[in-house]
Formats: sequence, C-alpha cells, structure tokens
Amino acid sequence: MSVFTTVTPDEASAWLSQYAIGKLVELNGISSGIENTNYFLTTTHGRYVLTLFEKLTHAELPYFLNLMDHLARHGVPCPQPVANIADSLLASLNGKPASIVSCLSGQSLETPGIAHCAQVGETLADIHLAGKTFPIQRSNPRGAAWWKATAQQVAPFLDAEAARLLNDELRFQALHRLQDLPRGVVHADLFRDNVLFDGERLGGVIDFYFACHDVWLYDVAIAVNDWCVSGDGALDEAHMLALLGAYHAVRPFTPIERGAWPVMLRAAALRFWVSRLHDLHFPRPGELTHAKDPGQFERILRQRVAAQSQLQRVWV
Amino acid sequence: MSVFTTVTPDEASAWLSQYAIGKLVELNGISSGIENTNYFLTTTHGRYVLTLFEKLTHAELPYFLNLMDHLARHGVPCPQPVANIADSLLASLNGKPASIVSCLSGQSLETPGIAHCAQVGETLADIHLAGKTFPIQRSNPRGAAWWKATAQQVAPFLDAEAARLLNDELRFQALHRLQDLPRGVVHADLFRDNVLFDGERLGGVIDFYFACHDVWLYDVAIAVNDWCVSGDGALDEAHMLALLGAYHAVRPFTPIERGAWPVMLRAAALRFWVSRLHDLHFPRPGELTHAKDPGQFERILRQRVAAQSQLQRVWV
Repeated sequence: MSVFTTVTPDEASAWLSQYAIGKLVELNGISSGIENTNYFLTTTHGRYVLTLFEKLTHAELPYFLNLMDHLARHGVPCPQPVANIADSLLASLNGKPASIVSCLSGQSLETPGIAHCAQVGETLADIHLAGKTFPIQRSNPRGAAWWKATAQQVAPFLDAEAARLLNDELRFQALHRLQDLPRGVVHADLFRDNVLFDGERLGGVIDFYFACHDVWLYDVAIAVNDWCVSGDGALDEAHMLALLGAYHAVRPFTPIERGAWPVMLRAAALRFWVSRLHDLHFPRPGELTHAKDPGQFERILRQRVAAQSQLQRVWV
Repeated sequence: MSVFTTVTPDEASAWLSQYAIGKLVELNGISSGIENTNYFLTTTHGRYVLTLFEKLTHAELPYFLNLMDHLARHGVPCPQPVANIADSLLASLNGKPASIVSCLSGQSLETPGIAHCAQVGETLADIHLAGKTFPIQRSNPRGAAWWKATAQQVAPFLDAEAARLLNDELRFQALHRLQDLPRGVVHADLFRDNVLFDGERLGGVIDFYFACHDVWLYDVAIAVNDWCVSGDGALDEAHMLALLGAYHAVRPFTPIERGAWPVMLRAAALRFWVSRLHDLHFPRPGELTHAKDPGQFERILRQRVAAQSQLQRVWV
C-alpha cells in the first residue's frame, strides 16, 4: 500500500481552497507506488492525482514539477502539475511537500507490440525536443561516477564471472565516454511501467523523478533495453527498429549517435544492473521489499556485449 | 464559413515539425466563428484546434495566449495553447499569426438550468482567483470611455425614448463609477456561447479575446445578464442565486460589491446594448452579417433600472 501519510476528506477540502479546481467530490488512496503517498482526487472540475512526497524535498521538487509543466505545455502527454492561487506548483499538506497533477488515462503494458514501441520512440523524441528550452539543468545522480562508486559496494556480493563482467564494462565505458553526443532533458527511466496506453494510443508518460540533463541517446538506449527485448535479454529487432525509426522521424539521429549506439545500450544496461544490485544488497531501512531482479540486466549486458558488432549494422 | 485562410494538409504537416505533438492525422475546417480561421487538427498525440488569426496581431496576441496558458496551468477548463519547440505559444502560418490550442469537449447551451448556472459561477470565480497572479494587465477597450464615444455615434439612430434611456444611463454610470471594487483578470464576454457543457459538466470556457483587467463584479454581471434572464430581459432569480451562490463559495463577495450589484448589472447591460447598436449601424466593410439584436440589451437595461431597488435585496 502506498498511503504513508493519511489525508482526510475534510483536510483535502480545506486545502483545496488554495486551488481554483473546484470543490472536493471524492478522495481515494492509490495502492501502487512505493515512494510517495498518492490519492485520486476528484473535484467538481475533474479528476486529479494528489501526491504527498515522502522523500523528495521542497528543494528538489521544483525541477521535476517545472519540467512536467514545461513538457505538458508543449503537448507532451504527461502529468500536468496544477498551480495554486499563489501560483506555486508545490505546496505543503500534513507536513509533507504536496502537489496536484492531472490524471492520465490508460494502463502500462507487459508485452508491447511494434506499434506501441513506435509511439514510445516518437514521444521520447518529443520529450527531447520540448525539453530543449527547459531552463533548469540537473546533473544525472546515476551517472558514471555513481556507477563506479556503487560497483565497488556491490562487487563483493558477485561471483567471479559477474564481477569480471562488471569490472570489464566499467573499464570499457570509461574508454568510450562520448562527450560530444547531443544532450538535453532525459526521462532516464522510460520503462514499460512508466508509460500508460489508453487502448492502442499512448495516453501518457509518468514518473519523471529520475529526469535530468544527459545524453539523449542514453535515454533511447534505456527505453530499448526494456521495450525491445525478449526473455533472455536479446534485442527484438523489429521492436527496436520501430522505436528507433519513430524517434528518428521526429529528431534525426546524428552520425556520431549511430556510431555510439552499441556503447549506449551497454551503458544503459550497466546502470540498471548496478542499481538493482544495490537495491538488493543494500535495502533502505524500513523499505518495502520491491527489489527487482538484477539478473535481467546482467543478461542484457552480456547479450549487448556479444552482439556489439551486429548492433553497429542494425540501424535505421 | 470561417476558413478565411486555407491550410493544406501538406502545409500543416510541415508546420507541425515545429511542435512536439506528433504527426498530422487529419485536418478539418471549422464552420463556426466569424473572426478567425479555425481547423480541427488531429495528430498522433491527440486532438487540437489550429487558429489563424485574421484580425488580432502578433503584438496583441501574447496577452490572450499567455492568459489561457496561465489559467489552464491553474486547472481552469479553457483552451490550452501549445508551445512550439522554440517555446513560443504564437507562430506564423501562411502569413497569419497562428496557434494550436487543446480541443475541449462539449457544446454550448441555449437554455441552461440552475445546476449549469452554478457551475458557471464557480468557474468564473476560479478564473478571477487564478488570474490574481497573471503578470500582464490589459485595460478594457470596451470601458466607460468607449461607451461614451460610441453612444455619441449611435444616438442619431435611436428614437427619442431610447436615446433618453441611453443618455440617462451614461449619466447614472458616470455618477456611480466605483473605483474601489476588487479587480483583476476578467473574461468580459461570458455568454452562453462561450461555455461548453459536456453532458451536465462544464467542459470549458472559450473565447478569451475580450479578456482584460477590470472589476470582477462587472464580469459576474455580464454573465448573469445572459445566463439568468427570461425572454423579456427580467432576471430569473433562482438562476441568479445559483450563479452568485456558487461564485461566492469560491470568492466571497465583499460588502461594497453587494452594494454595487444593481449598478453593475446596468453597466453590463449598457456595454452590450452600445456595442450591438454599433455593430448594427456601423458594420465593418466586408463583414459577414452576424449583428445581434441590440433590443435584447435595451430590454435588459430597462428591466434592471426598474428592478434596482428589488435587486439590492436579492442577494446571497
């Protein structure tokens, strides 16, 4: 369950007087999500999501809320934060930072098809283009320095073969840091559970709390490693070509990006392998156990290393 | 018909590359509206309205587009302009200022009920509150100075009785200018044809092109004079109390506003009587004839003058 901080209908009603979205009709706790308290909030104007942030602070949140506001203003289907009468996207409720965002329709998909992958590619390119004029930059807290430090922490838990793979990959990535790839706002976590489909149509991208300023192609690689894989971690070429082709039609890849593609797929696999290892071996105190299988990304990384020369050819 | 400037699907497709809202699916001219060219624009992301402004200029439009953006950001149901990749709400297409806004659902009502009037009152109060932090001020181009000048132009067309009513009302209003009433952003044209209902639910407020900075109560009076009247111009008390009560629940009226109410209803009637007389007797060259009956507002004004003392009592 994900209601860590209770909000009563009376509290919500009183708090809503700071907003111009009508009177409270209904308030229902949302049982998914492990980081924040979320309620479906229905008012006389419509349906929203009320979030009380349990970990992110008043100092960290403006980046994410302003980014969603910026992207929504450009037509990107994402939760749109609602400004209160004082013109702030962020307020406080029951001692927690809190915000109201628009409610998107749809569900996430377990087994996306080719048409879904194409929509994900198109929308990711839209996010990258719309983000070009976003004025705030946040560096990636899960970047190369974090991989290295975290790999040291988790290495003792690995068998010799996995430890060698991890070590080799860190060295490989350090030799291939491509500083001149196009960069900008990236979602950085565009997995299947962060995209809602309303029937066959992409209804929205959610969970921007890893968003930051980084290499665009890295964002594409993160998505491909989740949307375009078979069970053993191998790439599904048809899915990948659909995602890349739709992206390319909106924001054409540059020659240097084409060259960097296999390296980026490996970097994206490494990042999630390391973070899953860390979540598994260093659970936060009091954390609900939702640690995901690191093995999936170990397999993906092995597969990308093996397929590198082939990947260089498979391109739009 | 309202397509004054033709846009071909090829032109729209090419132009859409400046936006992050997907590829063109369909483009259909909209046959209502007399000032601008409007198209329904469907893209792979959703449904929008494309407007080419035929009279408003690049200098005038930012006020209106930024206002709609501001209000939408506060949750007010209104067309939300879409920013292009250069982060502008306003662009050019086929030589005209052009913008894309979200498409609202619903139809306008001929004969609203009490529940509709309540929603209009609530939403108008929301507009006033959300507008408090809007940073641009536009003075009312249809204010008292305009009434006086325009009344002089139209007076020769009136019979003696109507001319006396007009003259008396101008004098009355000049004696009752209430400078200390609360002011802010006003819609200034919240007639039934500018509100869409999606079933029983208010789906959106449209047409902000008379919006400006003026007395909030004047905006309420404009709405009441259209939403809460019977055929002869008399007020429907139940409708009016519903609208005022719902407004008051969001933004309570002050004592001075209560006192000013009968004067405001007369001012709002005068403004539209004068403008309709002007539209009738001085049609713009080449204008499609859509002049509305000035008689409706002459009747409303007479009725408000007659009912003044009663109106002072009828209050929330």
